[in-house]
Amino acid sequence: MSINAILSRVDADFPKSLDRLFDFLRIPSISADPSHKDDCVRAAEWLVRELTALGFDASLRPTPLHPMVIGHYTKAGPDKPHVLFYAHYDVQPADPLELWDSPPFEPVVKTFPDGSERILARGAQDDKGQLMTFLEACRALIAETGKLPVNVTFFSEGEEESGSPSMIPFLEANKAELSADVALVCDTEMWDRKTPAITTMLRGLVGEEISLRCASHDLHSGAFGGAALNPLQVLTKILGDLHDDKGRVTVPGFYDGVADISPTLRANWDNLGFDAAAFLGGAGLKTPAGEADRTVLEQIWSRPTCEINGLAGGYAGPGFKTVLPASAEAKVSFRLVAGQDPQKIRAAFRQYVRDRLPPDAKVEFREHGGSPAVHVAIDGAAVGKARAALEAEWGKAPALVGSGGSIPVVGNFKSILGLDSLMIGFGLDDDRIHSPNEKYEVTSYHGGIRSWVRVLDALAS
Amino acid sequence: MSINAILSRVDADFPKSLDRLFDFLRIPSISADPSHKDDCVRAAEWLVRELTALGFDASLRPTPLHPMVIGHYTKAGPDKPHVLFYAHYDVQPADPLELWDSPPFEPVVKTFPDGSERILARGAQDDKGQLMTFLEACRALIAETGKLPVNVTFFSEGEEESGSPSMIPFLEANKAELSADVALVCDTEMWDRKTPAITTMLRGLVGEEISLRCASHDLHSGAFGGAALNPLQVLTKILGDLHDDKGRVTVPGFYDGVADISPTLRANWDNLGFDAAAFLGGAGLKTPAGEADRTVLEQIWSRPTCEINGLAGGYAGPGFKTVLPASAEAKVSFRLVAGQDPQKIRAAFRQYVRDRLPPDAKVEFREHGGSPAVHVAIDGAAVGKARAALEAEWGKAPALVGSGGSIPVVGNFKSILGLDSLMIGFGLDDDRIHSPNEKYEVTSYHGGIRSWVRVLDALAS
Repeated sequence: MSINAILSRVDADFPKSLDRLFDFLRIPSISADPSHKDDCVRAAEWLVRELTALGFDASLRPTPLHPMVIGHYTKAGPDKPHVLFYAHYDVQPADPLELWDSPPFEPVVKTFPDGSERILARGAQDDKGQLMTFLEACRALIAETGKLPVNVTFFSEGEEESGSPSMIPFLEANKAELSADVALVCDTEMWDRKTPAITTMLRGLVGEEISLRCASHDLHSGAFGGAALNPLQVLTKILGDLHDDKGRVTVPGFYDGVADISPTLRANWDNLGFDAAAFLGGAGLKTPAGEADRTVLEQIWSRPTCEINGLAGGYAGPGFKTVLPASAEAKVSFRLVAGQDPQKIRAAFRQYVRDRLPPDAKVEFREHGGSPAVHVAIDGAAVGKARAALEAEWGKAPALVGSGGSIPVVGNFKSILGLDSLMIGFGLDDDRIHSPNEKYEVTSYHGGIRSWVRVLDALAS
Repeated sequence: MSINAILSRVDADFPKSLDRLFDFLRIPSISADPSHKDDCVRAAEWLVRELTALGFDASLRPTPLHPMVIGHYTKAGPDKPHVLFYAHYDVQPADPLELWDSPPFEPVVKTFPDGSERILARGAQDDKGQLMTFLEACRALIAETGKLPVNVTFFSEGEEESGSPSMIPFLEANKAELSADVALVCDTEMWDRKTPAITTMLRGLVGEEISLRCASHDLHSGAFGGAALNPLQVLTKILGDLHDDKGRVTVPGFYDGVADISPTLRANWDNLGFDAAAFLGGAGLKTPAGEADRTVLEQIWSRPTCEINGLAGGYAGPGFKTVLPASAEAKVSFRLVAGQDPQKIRAAFRQYVRDRLPPDAKVEFREHGGSPAVHVAIDGAAVGKARAALEAEWGKAPALVGSGGSIPVVGNFKSILGLDSLMIGFGLDDDRIHSPNEKYEVTSYHGGIRSWVRVLDALAS
């Protein structure tokens, strides 16, 4: 069977693929809004029906919040690889509605002045459009060849935009059922409109909240100023010393185990044509602020960071109060890379703070999440096959990109299921996900379907 | 005329002095509460009547908020000194009412387990009780001798607890009428129950608000963390470096012109028996936090400080947001001592901040008040006479104390009227001014009246 026949079927069937996506998009499966709980169930049931029609053994699996959808496809045969596909069916709230050019749950395709055709709807990209690239690829493969080339466990959650509270217990309770050779995760972006991407690095995260307390109550700075310990002074001193003058984090042991990226990856990044000035310029900035001897891509993808995310203490309202406050608080987070253990980093940070506390200052810490970085080995077999497949489709080798943020489920797949993830997605950075007028380019949807046909075909060999 | 006869009259008349104070205390002249505007006028009119009855040429003087009261007494004769007496007739709000043991505007005298008799009411000390010590002293002097020994301009405002918005324009518009040889200000405390005090040093104050802005909008720390400038990092670095490891302020030129206290004053302070451990212990602290080589009294009275009074930026609510905020804010104040010019300190601080701004960081400053320190020369003639008079009354030499806070009107008297102030008051540090169950010891009131008799008598010679 020629791959071209399957791709031709994708092309011929594309108007119907659009119709099916539209059906899916019309269900307002907003996971964060309790009034849309039934819509989340409707979206899950819609998926179960579609999967069943394609020959999957599909079911809706209740959780304390929104149901999971699992569909098993084993007709490729026991000699074929087994992939776990993941995408989420829930969407972000659509507020503020008045900023949408068309209603968020009435999808349309619009042609823009630059000639691009865009699917406009909440979830068009994140993540219903992306999810449907895979489902439609499966449909074309089955229609044209009678079966999928690999065994597939389709796995979709409806809580991703609400912090995935059910994910970890669900994975732990269903380890055996979800076993596979590799996970395919479709929730990321292309490098640009013409260049596909495989995301191979996600930074981890450690969040810490610090509460400092000095005096037993707020004091007047006239009466006590100069003699009484000021927690705002203690806090700014401790936090202000977290970086040295080269932008490196000063917490002892912070860089232990952190390695430079491989020459292969560096060469790939060097070829990306990343425009650091445009990237920073989009945020109104001109000068990279991180480690002085690192490129911007390294700073956001492969280097760990420490960021102060919040400060509060004393009087910050209108006017002025000469208060010498009893306490002060900060939220601090660390983005981690491979080789860094979240709990070790947390402990090292707490020790760093304690080592700097003057007499009379007491500190309390509160933990806010900790997840390790995810690095996918770019020389693995599955990555190699996916790279070739994507290059065949787009005419350009895929960018091997990092992501400064984390995708928790990828870490969960690794730690609970023991699965590496191939992160392939077809979003663009101007898709306005989470914002009004979310869109998915028709080329992303169409190219995404074709890409999965090629990737699944490649993985089978 | 023997001073003893006058003091005997004070003693004999004391029950009536208490009655008159109670009449005054029953008027709820809360300046901050618009619903008590008429009560402020009533309190001012009450004073005008009392002054007129004593032979003052007294009048109520409207301002945009609450009226001033001025009473002139010139019968001492042109060869006698002329003093300007100041106290305020307005009081703090009484909330929370439920924490008062007796209604705040129904004064009572209660005897406490330690034997002390206390006048309980809002304003009992601050400042109606203090004001009345002077008025009753005048009454006794006039009743016993037919006139006051010095010429007096009695000056009272009704806005002190509301920031005195009318004071500066009023002083500037009435310079000539308010001219005198020295000001007597009755709004301070004794050193302890048995030791009178003259306050000879008030620290000045410079308040500054800093707004830092980096990116054009809030960023996600996953996407931008490590490359984009974080204003919280910039702010904590700048503020954390404001003190060196000896507790000294690092703003260039900050200590220019700051002198050590005189040996005479140091000897007086050394004799005070100040209990630094008890002072700090009252705030739940053990270790002096200011300049390492200074005593606690120096730290709070004679040394300048820099305090961070407020910090805000990023996300400080419950939970965690990995935000990289666009802006951050701080409020910083400086307590100043003699030799420091508020505008120079302000300029030096702004330069210190600007010198530390990285590229892409923009700063805005907002001014919040600036007043110089007040130092009264302790070897002046009036101070010498007052010291002797107070020692004669209390049997102990008065403490020559500093105050870490400022009394703005004292600075205004100096800068606008050219008047030095003798700050003599009879409050105690446990009088709970501004709090429920404010009190004034009967010994403070009685001894205060007797003290002013002696001080006025001494100033005449």
